[in-house]
Amino acid sequence: MPATAKKTAATATARILVVDVGGSHVKCRLGADAQVRKFASDATLTPQRMVQEVRRIARGWAFDRVSIGYPGVVRHGVPVREPHNLGRGWVGFDYAAAFGRPVRMVNDAAMQALGSYRGGKMLFLGLGTGLGSALIVDGDVLAMELGHLHWTKKRTYEDFLGKAGYARMGKKKWRRRVRRVVQDFCDALLPDDIVVGGGQADRLKRLPAMARLGGNADAFDGGLRLWSDSSITIT
Amino acid sequence: MPATAKKTAATATARILVVDVGGSHVKCRLGADAQVRKFASDATLTPQRMVQEVRRIARGWAFDRVSIGYPGVVRHGVPVREPHNLGRGWVGFDYAAAFGRPVRMVNDAAMQALGSYRGGKMLFLGLGTGLGSALIVDGDVLAMELGHLHWTKKRTYEDFLGKAGYARMGKKKWRRRVRRVVQDFCDALLPDDIVVGGGQADRLKRLPAMARLGGNADAFDGGLRLWSDSSITIT
Repeated sequence: MPATAKKTAATATARILVVDVGGSHVKCRLGADAQVRKFASDATLTPQRMVQEVRRIARGWAFDRVSIGYPGVVRHGVPVREPHNLGRGWVGFDYAAAFGRPVRMVNDAAMQALGSYRGGKMLFLGLGTGLGSALIVDGDVLAMELGHLHWTKKRTYEDFLGKAGYARMGKKKWRRRVRRVVQDFCDALLPDDIVVGGGQADRLKRLPAMARLGGNADAFDGGLRLWSDSSITIT
Repeated sequence: MPATAKKTAATATARILVVDVGGSHVKCRLGADAQVRKFASDATLTPQRMVQEVRRIARGWAFDRVSIGYPGVVRHGVPVREPHNLGRGWVGFDYAAAFGRPVRMVNDAAMQALGSYRGGKMLFLGLGTGLGSALIVDGDVLAMELGHLHWTKKRTYEDFLGKAGYARMGKKKWRRRVRRVVQDFCDALLPDDIVVGGGQADRLKRLPAMARLGGNADAFDGGLRLWSDSSITIT
């Protein structure tokens, strides 16, 4: 990229506030700044309180657009199901009105996937409290809930690969399961590129064949791309 | 569609030969004709013999383009893995040269999915010898091999839902499994529309909620759409 184009792109994203809503924390970053600010979330968090807290910790930051990564199903920019790990009222809430700014919202795993996307058909798996997933195909971002597939009669993939599975099975078994699941999803979804990210990804000793590790800043970089990258479509 | 546009579209597809390559039969149709011609296939079928036999049974049909549904993984119009149930040599074979016509090739489940596609995000599941699958998102056709996901340590979804599973479990259990798998894929892939097709679909007593039944001619109609519908992209 020529220097002027780079500068223009940076200027264009400098005033975007990216909000990553999670089950244990809500994290915010302004543009490409290194600093991340956060507050603790829990099963009682409503969208009203989320916006209020975000505005509080973002004090002093000048932003005119907001990107939100939401831990649940989003269609066409709005949540269509209540989140599993937070309070109620997220479906139907007017985020743009509450922030007083234009808002783009996407599933949290999809936002993180976008941050590491380099082209082609990419599968993202996010190892966190649960198991996030997204598929990006030639710039089209498809949120998925692959973790909800059943692996046994009673348990889903998420039950094995999420935090509860780690606690139940221990590190060694968990690592083996992760490798096997990545291989399975790879055989089933036929991606060119696989990214494993999320807060628990550093518990892996080695990555499955074909996969690369996501970066810590992926969610925030993905949030900027929601506004700056015209080749991206959210479905 | 106005009558003239309809006539033009029909004329444009009248000389397309659609070939549906399967593990037990290879079936052909010319344009939107009602007549389907076929010959038996088996685990020794090579692409050379397929082309030779297709040309033989298509005698008298005037075609200038060919669509092929292939029972295996296709990327960017060419097979990238040998088929499970046929002979060898399918990867790297020059289909256009062998037919002496331009050829468009796609995964067989994807071609069938395309025949029943009405827009949005559609999941197709094909109950046949194995378990075919495809996802179409706003016209982008993604072939998938969801049947290869493991359901138990040793068995995949295909092992349960394919013909072998039917024989092993019996009708009642198989029907219950199908409903459960459709529900699982629905929760995981979040489609707006689900089509269940394939030769074994008529063994279902009732369809899972949200799903509709594919039609017998879907594969052929999908093959025509590969040429006639500019809103379709194969990835």
